[in-house]
Amino acid sequence: MTRVWTIDARDGATPVAERDDTVAVEAPLEIRLSGKALTVIMRTPGHDEELATGFLYSEGLITHPNDIVTLTRPERLTGDEVGNVLDVTLRPGLMAPSGERLFYASSSCGVCGKNAISALTIRAPVIDSSFTIAPSILSSLPDRLRAAQPVFSATGGVHASGLFSVRGTLELVREDVGRHNAIDKVIGWSLKKLRLPLSNFCLLVSGRVSYEIVQKAIAAGLPMVAAVGAPSSLAIELAEQFNLTLIGFLRGTTMNVYAHRERITRD
Amino acid sequence: MTRVWTIDARDGATPVAERDDTVAVEAPLEIRLSGKALTVIMRTPGHDEELATGFLYSEGLITHPNDIVTLTRPERLTGDEVGNVLDVTLRPGLMAPSGERLFYASSSCGVCGKNAISALTIRAPVIDSSFTIAPSILSSLPDRLRAAQPVFSATGGVHASGLFSVRGTLELVREDVGRHNAIDKVIGWSLKKLRLPLSNFCLLVSGRVSYEIVQKAIAAGLPMVAAVGAPSSLAIELAEQFNLTLIGFLRGTTMNVYAHRERITRD
Repeated sequence: MTRVWTIDARDGATPVAERDDTVAVEAPLEIRLSGKALTVIMRTPGHDEELATGFLYSEGLITHPNDIVTLTRPERLTGDEVGNVLDVTLRPGLMAPSGERLFYASSSCGVCGKNAISALTIRAPVIDSSFTIAPSILSSLPDRLRAAQPVFSATGGVHASGLFSVRGTLELVREDVGRHNAIDKVIGWSLKKLRLPLSNFCLLVSGRVSYEIVQKAIAAGLPMVAAVGAPSSLAIELAEQFNLTLIGFLRGTTMNVYAHRERITRD
Repeated sequence: MTRVWTIDARDGATPVAERDDTVAVEAPLEIRLSGKALTVIMRTPGHDEELATGFLYSEGLITHPNDIVTLTRPERLTGDEVGNVLDVTLRPGLMAPSGERLFYASSSCGVCGKNAISALTIRAPVIDSSFTIAPSILSSLPDRLRAAQPVFSATGGVHASGLFSVRGTLELVREDVGRHNAIDKVIGWSLKKLRLPLSNFCLLVSGRVSYEIVQKAIAAGLPMVAAVGAPSSLAIELAEQFNLTLIGFLRGTTMNVYAHRERITRD
């Protein structure tokens, strides 16, 4: 809980209210590979194992849950490290990339760790999915996501990613202060459950859609990303190129479709 | 311009409108040091030199505009590199860090490039400023920022950072798809104009406030950060520790104050 003072300009500088408030928790998660520091991700604690797993998958280090031999919280941590470190042991033969692609210094934003534009090439296959969905189902998704967002309701300060079926059933929701983390948590869960590629799901994100969101969706094999907010130019280009349906401004009964609208069909 | 189809679920899957739309441009900016790739930042093109300058300052590589000897766009670029590369030559003696702090692989998010929690320590001094501001001025800032946001008005898809004086005069506004980039553009401008530290300004940001925003504000010597959205727990902790006034949910006439409210005074 955080002490917060509410000021109303009509009443001057004296607070009109003082109370304890719940704020979105942000704390660093250090991921180690065999005891060696790999990366730090600023995240909302919770589902840390999913986040680490999804991150390693998104970054191309692992492709199967069995690639992770152990995933543990080290003992004897002190200070800020307590509760904020995960140590991963990968299957022999799987290594952290080195040289040009300095993965171990990257974060979860899908760009960091790459130092040149030429390193941004996405190696995932083009989406192969016959998934279609009705607009009436799509327009019902934001309310369903919001209803399943406990942290946002309390704080107003986190992003959510929801995995929805063709019927609009919410399969999974994950929240985080970082948009990319919320998706990595979804991907980590899906990998552990052997659900990848997510060929029969629509991913709904609470905010805007930029490069890193579509990049991670492509890595997860998602045929559709819908957002309450606006897409960026690069998100649209990637979606078009990788056969992913991209929807923005999904509000009320209307939505804007920016790529591959053929997957939006009649009820 | 991007082709966009608007669907209204009440009318089924057939688009009710089809038009060319303006979307927020996102493109990679590769920063080179003496010709060698240093980092890639996903940014909205425009004010690239400010962004590169602010980034180098935020990361602690430079402290004065004269630390940059040349900042040029290389010739003979091809493909995605065209318009998206800046080459910087630093004053002799200034080097890219190496070893533990893998700066050259980092992005602009304030965390990437650091691979361990122990590397997150902020080396900037505690804010020393006698800046105060009236609540009535504060509550007028969001409208002033919005009025000065040309890209947001067109796209709804970018973040803004505005630098305001004690009287509520907008000194500078910068927009970007990345919140941290908008601030780095402000910092780059300020460094070039020899305006750092920004001891007499309030920074208003359009979205939420997380670690990296407060971290960059501290690096710029700002005494106050106000946001339309929510702060994270770590943002509040940093603000408290570094003597920075942190305001969230600045909407209408009200605001929540999370740290150092003594700078909000009577009209």
